[in-house]
Amino acid sequence: MAAPLHFWFEFASTYSYLTAMRIESMAEDHGVTLVWRPFLLGPIFVAQGWNDSPFNLYPAKGRYMWQDMARICAVRGLAFRQPSVFPRNGLRAARIACLNSGAAWLPAFVRAVYTANFAADQDIADAAVLADCLEAAGTAPAPALSASTTDAARAALREQTDTAMAMGLFGAPSFTVGEALFWGDDRLDMALQAALAAPG
Amino acid sequence: MAAPLHFWFEFASTYSYLTAMRIESMAEDHGVTLVWRPFLLGPIFVAQGWNDSPFNLYPAKGRYMWQDMARICAVRGLAFRQPSVFPRNGLRAARIACLNSGAAWLPAFVRAVYTANFAADQDIADAAVLADCLEAAGTAPAPALSASTTDAARAALREQTDTAMAMGLFGAPSFTVGEALFWGDDRLDMALQAALAAPG
Repeated sequence: MAAPLHFWFEFASTYSYLTAMRIESMAEDHGVTLVWRPFLLGPIFVAQGWNDSPFNLYPAKGRYMWQDMARICAVRGLAFRQPSVFPRNGLRAARIACLNSGAAWLPAFVRAVYTANFAADQDIADAAVLADCLEAAGTAPAPALSASTTDAARAALREQTDTAMAMGLFGAPSFTVGEALFWGDDRLDMALQAALAAPG
Repeated sequence: MAAPLHFWFEFASTYSYLTAMRIESMAEDHGVTLVWRPFLLGPIFVAQGWNDSPFNLYPAKGRYMWQDMARICAVRGLAFRQPSVFPRNGLRAARIACLNSGAAWLPAFVRAVYTANFAADQDIADAAVLADCLEAAGTAPAPALSASTTDAARAALREQTDTAMAMGLFGAPSFTVGEALFWGDDRLDMALQAALAAPG
């Protein structure tokens, strides 16, 4: 019996897109239970003294990242278009995901939001775009959208982000197995192996 | 006929250690010619506004890096001990490597310096440590050590670091194939594939 793998993701994060599109099938292939944990990188970056994505603050790093993303997406056969706005505001999408992290439609919703951001260059803060993503995932948009503006939704995402920071997360995607932390799409295999090796 | 793979490394860099210990045999296995390009990260970090390693400036990132290194070294069967000083001063080692980048003993010298830093916790700025590394690599220490303090040595490493910055490098290890840049030990496979796919 494997330990659960916690997948920490931020909808504005390019490398989280890579992971979001493949993690569900990989976890299934390994017989590992997946826990979807949306969080916000913004407050974590602010705590590190950054008021923007490091890919914008450090231009050489940013130029490289866009090339790297395009190459990896090409190798994986994944659609990719550099968004006209980066980072996009994923706050409302994250609140929806946080309130519905155990829903059967959640993985498809997460993939739809990432695809909207990084393949279709859509504004994922726009309620109409989010409604399309919910519908594509097979759930009625109205209840999820209205619940996402409640105090409970705000509190749930804030608590999740606080937990991320307390666990030492500093970027996305990240994975945790118990207290062990893994950072980056490049560590997904190692995180899955850790889940398989840990007591369930 | 594959294109040459340029391996850009900094002796203080933890992840460069991972690559340095495996790149020669991997390049040989693929029939790819390797060009060893030592450079300094310090001036590149200063240009990004950092006066220290980002692993020291951003503690969460640093704590993670040491865990990640220990895990990867364990998987690869590579000796590893967190150095008591980080980052170590790799200036003289880099000047030696820069002046002798085509020497038959260079790859073994590079591995000896990384092993001294990250497995034996030795001061790689110390001439006696460097003499041991040169001797272990099969060359007489005295000529390489004395050449490393000349203006020519200083100029060669400065030029190499300027070239690195001009090519968009922002971290180590990095790889270039023509103008294509790859960053991180995790991209070694992709860089080798790019070398194989490019005209030689």
